[in-house]
Amino acid sequence: MKIWIIGLRGTTATTATVGTLAAQRGLLPLEGLLTETAPFGALPLAEVQTLEFGGCDLSPGHLAGTAHATLAAVGAFPTAVVEAVMPELERISITRGTLRGGGRAVEALAEGEPDLSESAREAIDRITSDLQGFAAGAPAVVVNLASTEPLTDPALASWDLAALEQALDADDSRIPASSLYAYAAVQARLPYINFTPSAGASLPALIELARETGVPLAGRDGKTGETLVKTALAPMFAIRALTVEGWYGTNILGNTDGQVLADPENRASKITSKQGVLEACLGYSPEGDVRIDYFPPLADHKVAWNFIQFRGWGGHRMRMQFTWEGTDAVLAAPLVLDLARLINFAWQRGEAGPIGALGLFFKTPEGSPEMNLHRQYEALLRWVEAGGQQAEPALEDPALRLPAPQRRAS
Amino acid sequence: MKIWIIGLRGTTATTATVGTLAAQRGLLPLEGLLTETAPFGALPLAEVQTLEFGGCDLSPGHLAGTAHATLAAVGAFPTAVVEAVMPELERISITRGTLRGGGRAVEALAEGEPDLSESAREAIDRITSDLQGFAAGAPAVVVNLASTEPLTDPALASWDLAALEQALDADDSRIPASSLYAYAAVQARLPYINFTPSAGASLPALIELARETGVPLAGRDGKTGETLVKTALAPMFAIRALTVEGWYGTNILGNTDGQVLADPENRASKITSKQGVLEACLGYSPEGDVRIDYFPPLADHKVAWNFIQFRGWGGHRMRMQFTWEGTDAVLAAPLVLDLARLINFAWQRGEAGPIGALGLFFKTPEGSPEMNLHRQYEALLRWVEAGGQQAEPALEDPALRLPAPQRRAS
Amino acid sequence: MKIWIIGLRGTTATTATVGTLAAQRGLLPLEGLLTETAPFGALPLAEVQTLEFGGCDLSPGHLAGTAHATLAAVGAFPTAVVEAVMPELERISITRGTLRGGGRAVEALAEGEPDLSESAREAIDRITSDLQGFAAGAPAVVVNLASTEPLTDPALASWDLAALEQALDADDSRIPASSLYAYAAVQARLPYINFTPSAGASLPALIELARETGVPLAGRDGKTGETLVKTALAPMFAIRALTVEGWYGTNILGNTDGQVLADPENRASKITSKQGVLEACLGYSPEGDVRIDYFPPLADHKVAWNFIQFRGWGGHRMRMQFTWEGTDAVLAAPLVLDLARLINFAWQRGEAGPIGALGLFFKTPEGSPEMNLHRQYEALLRWVEAGGQQAEPALEDPALRLPAPQRRAS
Amino acid sequence: MKIWIIGLRGTTATTATVGTLAAQRGLLPLEGLLTETAPFGALPLAEVQTLEFGGCDLSPGHLAGTAHATLAAVGAFPTAVVEAVMPELERISITRGTLRGGGRAVEALAEGEPDLSESAREAIDRITSDLQGFAAGAPAVVVNLASTEPLTDPALASWDLAALEQALDADDSRIPASSLYAYAAVQARLPYINFTPSAGASLPALIELARETGVPLAGRDGKTGETLVKTALAPMFAIRALTVEGWYGTNILGNTDGQVLADPENRASKITSKQGVLEACLGYSPEGDVRIDYFPPLADHKVAWNFIQFRGWGGHRMRMQFTWEGTDAVLAAPLVLDLARLINFAWQRGEAGPIGALGLFFKTPEGSPEMNLHRQYEALLRWVEAGGQQAEPALEDPALRLPAPQRRAS
Repeated sequence: MKIWIIGLRGTTATTATVGTLAAQRGLLPLEGLLTETAPFGALPLAEVQTLEFGGCDLSPGHLAGTAHATLAAVGAFPTAVVEAVMPELERISITRGTLRGGGRAVEALAEGEPDLSESAREAIDRITSDLQGFAAGAPAVVVNLASTEPLTDPALASWDLAALEQALDADDSRIPASSLYAYAAVQARLPYINFTPSAGASLPALIELARETGVPLAGRDGKTGETLVKTALAPMFAIRALTVEGWYGTNILGNTDGQVLADPENRASKITSKQGVLEACLGYSPEGDVRIDYFPPLADHKVAWNFIQFRGWGGHRMRMQFTWEGTDAVLAAPLVLDLARLINFAWQRGEAGPIGALGLFFKTPEGSPEMNLHRQYEALLRWVEAGGQQAEPALEDPALRLPAPQRRAS
Repeated sequence: MKIWIIGLRGTTATTATVGTLAAQRGLLPLEGLLTETAPFGALPLAEVQTLEFGGCDLSPGHLAGTAHATLAAVGAFPTAVVEAVMPELERISITRGTLRGGGRAVEALAEGEPDLSESAREAIDRITSDLQGFAAGAPAVVVNLASTEPLTDPALASWDLAALEQALDADDSRIPASSLYAYAAVQARLPYINFTPSAGASLPALIELARETGVPLAGRDGKTGETLVKTALAPMFAIRALTVEGWYGTNILGNTDGQVLADPENRASKITSKQGVLEACLGYSPEGDVRIDYFPPLADHKVAWNFIQFRGWGGHRMRMQFTWEGTDAVLAAPLVLDLARLINFAWQRGEAGPIGALGLFFKTPEGSPEMNLHRQYEALLRWVEAGGQQAEPALEDPALRLPAPQRRAS
Repeated sequence: MKIWIIGLRGTTATTATVGTLAAQRGLLPLEGLLTETAPFGALPLAEVQTLEFGGCDLSPGHLAGTAHATLAAVGAFPTAVVEAVMPELERISITRGTLRGGGRAVEALAEGEPDLSESAREAIDRITSDLQGFAAGAPAVVVNLASTEPLTDPALASWDLAALEQALDADDSRIPASSLYAYAAVQARLPYINFTPSAGASLPALIELARETGVPLAGRDGKTGETLVKTALAPMFAIRALTVEGWYGTNILGNTDGQVLADPENRASKITSKQGVLEACLGYSPEGDVRIDYFPPLADHKVAWNFIQFRGWGGHRMRMQFTWEGTDAVLAAPLVLDLARLINFAWQRGEAGPIGALGLFFKTPEGSPEMNLHRQYEALLRWVEAGGQQAEPALEDPALRLPAPQRRAS
Repeated sequence: MKIWIIGLRGTTATTATVGTLAAQRGLLPLEGLLTETAPFGALPLAEVQTLEFGGCDLSPGHLAGTAHATLAAVGAFPTAVVEAVMPELERISITRGTLRGGGRAVEALAEGEPDLSESAREAIDRITSDLQGFAAGAPAVVVNLASTEPLTDPALASWDLAALEQALDADDSRIPASSLYAYAAVQARLPYINFTPSAGASLPALIELARETGVPLAGRDGKTGETLVKTALAPMFAIRALTVEGWYGTNILGNTDGQVLADPENRASKITSKQGVLEACLGYSPEGDVRIDYFPPLADHKVAWNFIQFRGWGGHRMRMQFTWEGTDAVLAAPLVLDLARLINFAWQRGEAGPIGALGLFFKTPEGSPEMNLHRQYEALLRWVEAGGQQAEPALEDPALRLPAPQRRAS
């Protein structure tokens, strides 16, 4: 199977690619893949040994040029391992991406003057052609790992497919790059995974197109750190009927992501994506903000501190706090492979549109309202056990299951 | 419904009793009860308004005598609330308990020279008679909230009921007080809940007796703090296929519990109860200890710090830590009520022996191998939805569901 | 000695007043006063037993009206203690303050439409008259505990006294309320302490006036929480020649302070005051922000989390983090008394202008460049040992003493 | 200058040696040395460029054999740097140490059956001869970096030199290895630094011998982690007149040190060394333990968590906690160099016996009662400014300077 990555020079993409190549050669253990664990043993997933990578980025070329520099900040691989896969990295060519709608923070990352002359239709057609050339008829999936875009104009949420087509004809500048890529993926009939908070294929018009064309979608915004912990931990308070009065979180990160998110425009997308989860897990919305700050000394590491104040018997107040010290690219890389294998499986089975059973991997799951990590995992297992049949997973009303802190009528 | 508590002068018992009396009079909100949340709305549970309390302790008398002093360290209730229920507390009489097998740390708590002259049979019969007098034919349950006993002699685990009866006849000093109480509860045909790590009704011989007699049991060791968080959080690592290399925890607490647990004998029971949960949730046992230390300045508060080192993609190491600052009695009190209501319901339905569906409330659940908090909650909901029918809950092999870090055969 | 507090209804002022009255009556221990420790035993300080309180606030009246509500959020005193001093609180009258220059967040706190009709000169004269009436010839000091104002217009820093007088004549709206109060205090010949980050007496023109008039000043911004820890801890890294690459801090607080600081205008003053300390303690400025967020569930408590990344031998990176859980009013109250006693002593000795030896108590010490807590304490002890003689304390070049991370010429 | 290290194969010794060799060749920055900062610029210290290393360990050989394996767990140096200094490491020969008195945990580290046949006198003479051969008349110092020994028999503290000589003649098994090494160093007229909690030169008899012979001593137990932070932070509470009710600390570490300290015998030395500091810094002893646990996943890293409960105005309770994540060898290595340079300087100046001014570097400073890090630094600066003249540093009564929480007589 082939994986085509938007933002192939980024740390997550480079970490996923180099780690896979190294594991294929026996240079590193294959750790951290959920799809390698027992419950997935019976599925006919693409073998890790067969995975091939390609993609695009702001500056074209090949991956060997930037791999060393990119991976130094991550610190996940010994230098010798990166050296050993250099010849393969030189063969991974990177085509030119599009800058449309990335916002000023992304434009600032592009070397030289950004070329914004290409129309939306031209960009889509060029990318579709790149995708078809890459896949060359073999099974392939598209993954968005590009920098976070600013929040999309709300008007786009009301467009049907016809309205989107019209806007593309008019070269409407409100259509973000991530959605042009998603359109191209669907047009090329390749499954599309959106690992970022950008709009991507989440526009109703694109979901309509994907369903018509028979292309499965998965998204949005990989759940790798603070939100992962939140959706594992918040249900505990509900299960113990403890009322969460406030939940405050601050995230510091030092990589390009942090730099892009330091721009208030782009940060808004991320924070919106992070904030809904507590209400979904608890049944109400505690007080408290989610902060994201750029802290260069951390390089590709991320530290999140969360402070939770809750109330129990007799209204007594208690507290808990946690600090998460993770490496984003290391946490995200195996999820990219898991998702690629599972969406390819959904495609083989003829599923189309958002695959709700893959919500486990995302902060803003598309195709399912479920946010509780443990219930998402149960939903995925049910999907796997049903042979991947789209079982309308986890669409039961969570309000029935999660104890909201109200009193029983008595 | 009546609730008879072993260790009625303790902080949890006093907090549960005073809080309930205050809520019955509208002086405090009724917060923190799972059985007051929506999923339990249809069950015919005993109304909180009808609950009555009684019990025994090392020194007999009534609860009013010690309530003020006990609750001061907890800090959960305004002084005026305690004052307002004083007349009721004076009517709650406390019978004399038994010291047999509590270990030297518990004996040290008793005022004056401990009276150890009573034989096992005499103690059982006296307590049975106390229980029958208390219940007076009305629905009632027995809850063990006494101090933690030392680990029981392993020989008792191989006794059948006949062997136990013989040992009682011989006044065998290895039978702990908690099991004498459990025997008395079963003999009085009252459901028995063991909220402590002591042996209680967990001896196979007592389970046999309870099944024969038709008495439901629930235990063991209330899951209120560090272990609660562990069983909510550990599954997250499994769900993300992250390998937990080590999980270290230290607990500091300042109340009688802490003092009793400062004795290595009694601490051993507690730590044994705490340690199994990670293996059950992860499928393997990470390195690391669980410490419990007595830290008087905390009074009835407990602080637990946990440090977790885990490994992901390419073997890269990451870390997380949390600090839990809770008040044991406040966390435990509503669980006592939830358990009393639910086991009484099981008794109405004719269930007997350990009720596995109540494993959610315990560190060492009896009647179910499930430790994962989220799966325990699902099991309880299934039990509730089935009208409480003993549905052999959650006995599926967890190894099939929890992704152990091994590789898929390929 | 009498203490006149600007912002007398605030939590710190109420906590200081009620705590002192209670200690005077033997209802509470007198804890937390530095001036009650051994090194200060020989100084002729005003006795705590003799302290009397008065002051002004946005709504006049007496302190009894708001004490209960204010102190509930602090939780420092039993209700019975507050009750016991109620008669005294009814005798503490509160005059009307001025709103000029407090910024929109402070104006929002005032009930009804704020009255901004009074001119600067009129406000000064009214307050001067209030102060003189309060002191009535006895020793007295003025303490600013009002809400933080927005940053002052930089132009005011270049004004000499003549320019300030001219601006007052012109009723220049850029002169903040805190400076009008400071002017009034100096005019009334009363020592002035600025416990807030507002400008107060820090304008060069007011220092000139204080020196001419013979009035001692102390300020600015009480060092009670995160900054206290920072100035105690940062020198450790210097002493071990460890390079601090980044120091990130976030503060959450739930009281009026938090609400006022949620306004970006007012927050700017506070953050400016917090940020200089690391450079002063380390000799260079690490990367990282200081955040302040409003988190209502905390009421008057404050939680600060700081994350520090540092580099040692061979450039190896290490980390440390701390969480501070304090109660602002409880930490600040005794400092108000310590400062009042010490500045009154300076006044007795004839010192005038900013007293650098009191820098220990402030985030932005006036009259001394020293920020290192431990060196500030040594400077205060030297001042005390010299009988309070203005010893140009701590004006040695800190660069000579603090090991900056540069290499020795070799 | 030459540095002879007892325990040369250990992580700290290897990290110090490899890092120095690399810095001498310009392969690494020379970071983390206090003696390279401005205040030490005028002292005639041995140049880093001239430092040479040697020493002994349980198994003789040369350092190249174990450097790679040892440094892998530390992670401070890139592999290429270690490779580059391999030829030098091959020239650093390691002589055979002695096992006498190391305790069973150290004996377990020795490969094969430990040879305990050598008498105390024979061991001293052999080591003295090794030291003389190494120094060959050039300036040299001896540093103890061996594993922590069990607590020494208290009887040894009452021995004068004559009694020690007699005990040596009798081959008394209570004399620990560290003291034999110290005796040999003094006999060889080389300054001796004890970086461990073992007895070393702290026996009164050895101090007597050192003073007679004119040899300077420095010790004991390098202050690199939790205790460093404690002695920087505890004075803050005193300076604010906050009463520390309890201070609890737990340390987890994963290297040989952790393994040796997992033995209760050896741990006792370490904990004794750690516990005195709070009383010395505060003037009283708060409640709370210091724990050390072996946690293998951390390798050479150490994590310490400390929880502090303190009381302020009106007796109100507050809390603070910190987590220190350091790498012991990285923190200790530069201190070894700083100490070697400074004690060599003391030796040049003719100072003998314990050098109190070097107390800054130790948990149990010898020659000075001062524990407060900041005051230790001031004392060192005074010593430096006085040209190293033994200025009876910091022997003022700390009770006079540190505000104990008692009240001023009034």
